[in-house]
Amino acid sequence: MWRATILTLFPEMFPGPLGLSLAGDALARGVWALETRQIREHGIGRHRAVDDTPAGGGPGMVMRADVLAAAIDAAADENDPRPRLLMSPRGRPLTQARVRDLAQGPGAVILCARFEGVDERIIAARRLEEVSIGDYILSGGEVAAFALMDACVRLLPGVMGEELSGEEESFETGLLEYPHYTRPRDFEGRPIPEILLSGDHAKIAKWRHEQALALTRARRPDLLARGKE
Amino acid sequence: MWRATILTLFPEMFPGPLGLSLAGDALARGVWALETRQIREHGIGRHRAVDDTPAGGGPGMVMRADVLAAAIDAAADENDPRPRLLMSPRGRPLTQARVRDLAQGPGAVILCARFEGVDERIIAARRLEEVSIGDYILSGGEVAAFALMDACVRLLPGVMGEELSGEEESFETGLLEYPHYTRPRDFEGRPIPEILLSGDHAKIAKWRHEQALALTRARRPDLLARGKE
Repeated sequence: MWRATILTLFPEMFPGPLGLSLAGDALARGVWALETRQIREHGIGRHRAVDDTPAGGGPGMVMRADVLAAAIDAAADENDPRPRLLMSPRGRPLTQARVRDLAQGPGAVILCARFEGVDERIIAARRLEEVSIGDYILSGGEVAAFALMDACVRLLPGVMGEELSGEEESFETGLLEYPHYTRPRDFEGRPIPEILLSGDHAKIAKWRHEQALALTRARRPDLLARGKE
Repeated sequence: MWRATILTLFPEMFPGPLGLSLAGDALARGVWALETRQIREHGIGRHRAVDDTPAGGGPGMVMRADVLAAAIDAAADENDPRPRLLMSPRGRPLTQARVRDLAQGPGAVILCARFEGVDERIIAARRLEEVSIGDYILSGGEVAAFALMDACVRLLPGVMGEELSGEEESFETGLLEYPHYTRPRDFEGRPIPEILLSGDHAKIAKWRHEQALALTRARRPDLLARGKE
């Protein structure tokens, strides 16, 4: 079973959207498990403080390394084989290849930060892997954790079933996905491309590949360059 | 008021994580509004079908253009000034600059697709802007919509308050964020860098900038190249 442990100040956000649809069905069937841990239980003093002002000044608050260390140690001991991820815009951008690796592993321990971020020292001290879901700023790591878990869970055995078409999907081939069409044949004067109605499967496959290539070239030449590396 | 309208097959997923914390407080105070529309209400026939098999063959199902057109037209008329976004891995990658533009606008109409995606013709017919939150595949557009809305809502006036330190945050300067430290001064034998305790604000600012630059060079040289364009 793929196991996710979430360290957060907002455990009540989970499973949230992952409690429904594909991920929710898989959760109910025990294909994966989701555990949340309240970081504040390891907070300091009567007010269970988890953060403090930044050394050297500046706005906002920083999550304390000692509090996070206690929360991580309580959630995953030294022998826990799962990677420890810190959702952070400073991290390595998440890719479908990394998602596939994670989905094939035992799960993940995911630290969701808030405020200005975490004390830098916790990252090395607990060997956290910083992961970014994109080049934008969220109000906390929780929404990023949803994206990462959703991407992983759909790849677990038995989750997508027949629907999974791994090789044809975006990024699995290094290309953006070709355009899809379905009934009606004419939509507001826009017809389905003739070739898709031809029944010639070889021609259709070639057309789709050309479309995917042209789309990728126009929108994401960086993906083509990456594929050549 | 910033208004988000979500077209989805899973309206019960919303507001989900955005009903709590910063975004939830702002929602309760009326800083922004969230409306969900069930696409299936515009489905075809007794079973309210929203999808059909792909023209030309292939796995999975494709969301029908006519069904989506009816759902979009019912949610946002021609005079609605909001951009119409389709969350899709084929889209333009979301950036903090685009988030800022969206947050300064009237809101967004967000179409969340499922299955293999939407009939290509709906994109041009309803002038949808395809937006990707990253190079990985989700089980549907809903989790992507959470990320986009969370990123926008935190920038709305009065949401972050004193906490918002726009200029110092990742991507706002084109650099990844410098490392943060807070108490305790010594954590497991790891001290806070001396310079942050010096009280010399000019030196601290210089050190932080150098750290941010070094981190960006090491991890994301693409951000530096982008900044020079």
